[in-house]
Amino acid sequence: MEQRYSIVTLGTVDLARARKFYEECLGWRPFMTEGMTAYDMGGIAFGLFAHDALADDADLPHSPVTEGSYHGFAIAYNARSEQEVDEILAHIADKGTTYGAKVLKEAHKAFWGGYSAYFADPDGHAWEVAYNPYWPVSDDGKLGLPEPEAG
Amino acid sequence: MEQRYSIVTLGTVDLARARKFYEECLGWRPFMTEGMTAYDMGGIAFGLFAHDALADDADLPHSPVTEGSYHGFAIAYNARSEQEVDEILAHIADKGTTYGAKVLKEAHKAFWGGYSAYFADPDGHAWEVAYNPYWPVSDDGKLGLPEPEAG
Repeated sequence: MEQRYSIVTLGTVDLARARKFYEECLGWRPFMTEGMTAYDMGGIAFGLFAHDALADDADLPHSPVTEGSYHGFAIAYNARSEQEVDEILAHIADKGTTYGAKVLKEAHKAFWGGYSAYFADPDGHAWEVAYNPYWPVSDDGKLGLPEPEAG
Repeated sequence: MEQRYSIVTLGTVDLARARKFYEECLGWRPFMTEGMTAYDMGGIAFGLFAHDALADDADLPHSPVTEGSYHGFAIAYNARSEQEVDEILAHIADKGTTYGAKVLKEAHKAFWGGYSAYFADPDGHAWEVAYNPYWPVSDDGKLGLPEPEAG
């Protein structure tokens, strides 16, 4: 199994609401909307799929979505500057809330030397928005990451 | 907010166990192991972080991990062929179980025209392993995805 992944799919209990957030509020454009809704994130995909149907697809039991709960993972967007982090969080606070999103943690200097904030999408999935000065973002949005550790 | 994401971080209740699975069983190599453990997936990162600490980082309440539960999302690896899907699932069934991973759904022809299977990592996070003939995988592991829909 090569060291890569191809798609992250988030379960949603209200696909129309989630699509409005990602498409109207954030401005993203899907390449497919039949069955799965999917977005090209630069050679990798981001998907939205009905919460229970995604469990069914993996042969897992259904589980309820609890308001304000932790889902055991986070997805991160690395911004190009601290200013961009502030702008995104201000946009979520100003406009995102009408789409069901909300700020989880205000932007702050993080212990690891960067600048970080979190918001929840309309289904409560946690997105970190961070500026990491050690991992530069290239023009095409990819991260410049260190070489693998020896060993 | 540009249409991209940078990192997917999975919470783990046993980092040593999770690292053994991803590194020894799957053969991945991290570029950092202090604090967060992170892997370069081709200009995007994959992270492992203590389950409760990840909740704390997002200012979310702790929540228990339930054996065999659905976490509200899936991460997918698009293989280059049906044979590669079969090989990966056979490896999980043969070796992965000793690392705490398990097959959730055997490889099968999927309703959407591809070939799909699921396994759970040692923390129960669902990975889909699929061959999608409509989304070719390039040499560098990126997907050839359709153009965005008009509108």
